[in-house]
Amino acid sequence: MKTYLDCLPCFMYQALRAGRVSTDDENKIKHLIDSVGNMLKDIPMDNTPPETGDIIYREVRKITGVYDPYKKIKEANIKEALSLYPKLKKIVYASDNRLLTAIRIAIAGNVIDLGVNKEFNIIKDLEKTLKQDFAILHFNEFVTQLEKAKSVLYLGDNAGESVFDKILIEELEKAVTYAVRDIPVINDVTLKDAIDSGLDEVAEIISSGTSAPGTILDLCNNTFLERFYRADMVISKGQGNYEGLSNVDRSLFFLLKAKCKVIANDLKVQENDIVLKAINT
Amino acid sequence: MKTYLDCLPCFMYQALRAGRVSTDDENKIKHLIDSVGNMLKDIPMDNTPPETGDIIYREVRKITGVYDPYKKIKEANIKEALSLYPKLKKIVYASDNRLLTAIRIAIAGNVIDLGVNKEFNIIKDLEKTLKQDFAILHFNEFVTQLEKAKSVLYLGDNAGESVFDKILIEELEKAVTYAVRDIPVINDVTLKDAIDSGLDEVAEIISSGTSAPGTILDLCNNTFLERFYRADMVISKGQGNYEGLSNVDRSLFFLLKAKCKVIANDLKVQENDIVLKAINT
Repeated sequence: MKTYLDCLPCFMYQALRAGRVSTDDENKIKHLIDSVGNMLKDIPMDNTPPETGDIIYREVRKITGVYDPYKKIKEANIKEALSLYPKLKKIVYASDNRLLTAIRIAIAGNVIDLGVNKEFNIIKDLEKTLKQDFAILHFNEFVTQLEKAKSVLYLGDNAGESVFDKILIEELEKAVTYAVRDIPVINDVTLKDAIDSGLDEVAEIISSGTSAPGTILDLCNNTFLERFYRADMVISKGQGNYEGLSNVDRSLFFLLKAKCKVIANDLKVQENDIVLKAINT
Repeated sequence: MKTYLDCLPCFMYQALRAGRVSTDDENKIKHLIDSVGNMLKDIPMDNTPPETGDIIYREVRKITGVYDPYKKIKEANIKEALSLYPKLKKIVYASDNRLLTAIRIAIAGNVIDLGVNKEFNIIKDLEKTLKQDFAILHFNEFVTQLEKAKSVLYLGDNAGESVFDKILIEELEKAVTYAVRDIPVINDVTLKDAIDSGLDEVAEIISSGTSAPGTILDLCNNTFLERFYRADMVISKGQGNYEGLSNVDRSLFFLLKAKCKVIANDLKVQENDIVLKAINT
């Protein structure tokens, strides 16, 4: 997905939020906003948003000197998600369609996103998403490909959401590889976060090799790229991965909640809609 | 009121919205956003937000070549407000406290603001505001000063809202001067808009002499300043005027709806609260 004009002010808000989480020094935050404002003219509009996100969050690290500003928030979100895990498993077991319910739960976890300009309440949003209609639901394609697949590559998105991903991975009953960001960026899931979420019990965890808040193939390492092209099935969670991969040339399933108008328009759905979208199947 | 860090990304959104209203040429809009992004580093944080607004909307005019992008929207809002006028007059006549009801109506009109990042529905917001509790209500001070006053200076805010102002001015029963922006900026009320709203029937209309979307005394002309300091009572409508005058050294009544968090925090109220606040009385 290309960068839209609406993304530009949003990058400024992201810099402000990341600056505030990193430091109380208003001068440093002002310097960061000035710097990001000055960068806008050099951002090619055919960049995907996470490519620009990568540049901006590098600037956050450089100016504030803080490597992982969302560390404590990520830990708290993982803890809260883990406390919900037993209840969510019961919901899956009690449902008529375990796989579809697990998909809903995984999408519900996608509200735990500190990149977009939204406040969230995990429990309330979860209850809502469990009842919500899908705006796009390519479930048959998902089941067909899953039945044939031996290997599944699952692209993680946010820390905390990762616990909800575990529930879906357990329902896939396949050899799953779970890909994480190489270093902390926003509240995206890293190797440590994935292990804290218990994903090492159900999947092999690999780094995508990138610090971008989304999957940009040009920035990923060879191990990841090999898995990406050789996996029988790829499941991509969240907005950042969608933004990076929406025009990719292999079959793929996007699971996400459209949390901003730009993504919603790109997907031709409404803001806050939930989506299971297949491409190239 | 000083510029807060949160104002900076908001300026970018304002540039984007004004750019879009002015032109369909995405390259021009991108150029405008780049230019505003580049300006941020030169904005002193002790500027009031409308001082910066003035600079930004000059840039909108310069880059898009459009002098009054909100012209048609302003005309439509005035037309809609005029169609509500008879109904609103009935509400005033039927109320227990005509002055307070007229104040509420004038504040309800304050939702017609295309500077802030909010969509509005005049009729729905009006109904809500008529029932809403005030977060700050210095009504006794207002009545006391009004009773003694011979001359009232009323600082207009947005076009359309101006019709609602007329209803309050009619209840004041004083010699009222209504001050407008010197040239079009966002959807702020100008001389033409004020006349289209029927304000010439109830007040003398003067220009503040400024193109800023708020009252910045340093930018106002002498005629305005004389009225400002000599008026027995000054009523200031809306956010832009509050931002410019919140620290001024004369008695003043602010009537507004707090439409963004920054203003709400500055006033120590909640977002969407309504306020009648006296200073220096």
